[in-house]
Amino acid sequence: MSQNIYDTAEFFAGYSAMRRSIEGLEGAAEWPAVRAQLTDLAGKRVVDLGCGFGWFARHARSAGAASVLGLDISQNMIARAKADTQDDAITYGIADLEELELPVASFDFAHSSLAFHYIENFERLVTMVHRALVPGSRFVFTIEHPIFMAPRNPGWSADADGRRIWPLDSYALEGRRTTDWLAKGVVKYHRRLSTTINALVSAGFAICHVEEWAPSEQDLANHSEWAEELDRPTFLLVAAER
Amino acid sequence: MSQNIYDTAEFFAGYSAMRRSIEGLEGAAEWPAVRAQLTDLAGKRVVDLGCGFGWFARHARSAGAASVLGLDISQNMIARAKADTQDDAITYGIADLEELELPVASFDFAHSSLAFHYIENFERLVTMVHRALVPGSRFVFTIEHPIFMAPRNPGWSADADGRRIWPLDSYALEGRRTTDWLAKGVVKYHRRLSTTINALVSAGFAICHVEEWAPSEQDLANHSEWAEELDRPTFLLVAAER
Repeated sequence: MSQNIYDTAEFFAGYSAMRRSIEGLEGAAEWPAVRAQLTDLAGKRVVDLGCGFGWFARHARSAGAASVLGLDISQNMIARAKADTQDDAITYGIADLEELELPVASFDFAHSSLAFHYIENFERLVTMVHRALVPGSRFVFTIEHPIFMAPRNPGWSADADGRRIWPLDSYALEGRRTTDWLAKGVVKYHRRLSTTINALVSAGFAICHVEEWAPSEQDLANHSEWAEELDRPTFLLVAAER
Repeated sequence: MSQNIYDTAEFFAGYSAMRRSIEGLEGAAEWPAVRAQLTDLAGKRVVDLGCGFGWFARHARSAGAASVLGLDISQNMIARAKADTQDDAITYGIADLEELELPVASFDFAHSSLAFHYIENFERLVTMVHRALVPGSRFVFTIEHPIFMAPRNPGWSADADGRRIWPLDSYALEGRRTTDWLAKGVVKYHRRLSTTINALVSAGFAICHVEEWAPSEQDLANHSEWAEELDRPTFLLVAAER
């Protein structure tokens, strides 16, 4: 059973105030990188694992998906997703990704945005996703980058010359991390980048593309605060094929 | 043209005194991880890119390889490799991996140990290696891990509580790094882990296994000094299939 931090009042209020919650996909720095990996969604049966407010589900439909199943552990989020969606081809449901079983060979595309780092048993999850996809399907997801996740005390520091550094430690020590982000005691699970890749390969996926998101020069011109992403990545994107 | 730091007297003397230079493969912490990825070398035509003193070439032959071509930029290393090898099925040669062209479809296995981080044009190299291998061949290599490579000032530091941290910065800023290791002014090329993976995929390789080397409990019992590898990896291993 995953922690359902999104349904605590403090976290949900904080999350709802984020740019990506208000503006949707365009408000997420990493969205252009995700979009570039989507291939053609036309006619596809799409599943979105950790669908939040349904922004991706609605995007997939506007891009021609035949149907979208959006699943999330948060009742608050699913309630708002339903309220914000008028489309009979989109179905939302409550699900814990730690235990979810999808029907076999029922989807042509799987997506997840920043949800899997809350999951302890990633191997089980990707094996289940592999079963749920038909051969030739694509699986595109983002997670918090392991360099971002690993430290016992995540947060910027400075070296002796006053330059910004990310104090990394415990990179090989996988497992539970408890941090304070929007609320106290948010539980996440750190895995090395290699562990994520190897779990996909073991489940039968072929790796198509890996991206440790960093801003472009144009991004930096519009968002100078993203410069710290050049020092330490926050987002990891993986695209794989069944 | 790559820098040939191995043929400077200071670097060569320092490198020759390292445990891996004296004891060979068994003196390298990451060797068991490499060996686990070798599959069956029996009857294979093997190429070793950056062969050094020829330890891997001789291992491959003892594991049944039909022939081994060992290439290195260092005249000192090739001279010692030849002196240490009595085996007509092993050929050594001087080559700059930045410019090397191997004959098409002439090898069944490619190996490289800790050489590619000296190479600026990794995409050219892996495309050439792909051409040189027959379909079904395996390509196993190690490089310095990008977390190890990235910082402007690589070296351990401590946080406010005195705990060991690796001060990471510039992870997304790929390219030349000049460090002092065994000699001053050693030139290396930093690439993100994703860039290494994507170059292999673009060249036509399938990713089989990625390993960010860390010591086991048994390793730590024998080498307590390896504990720092739990905080920050030094070695990256990739196994791919043509």
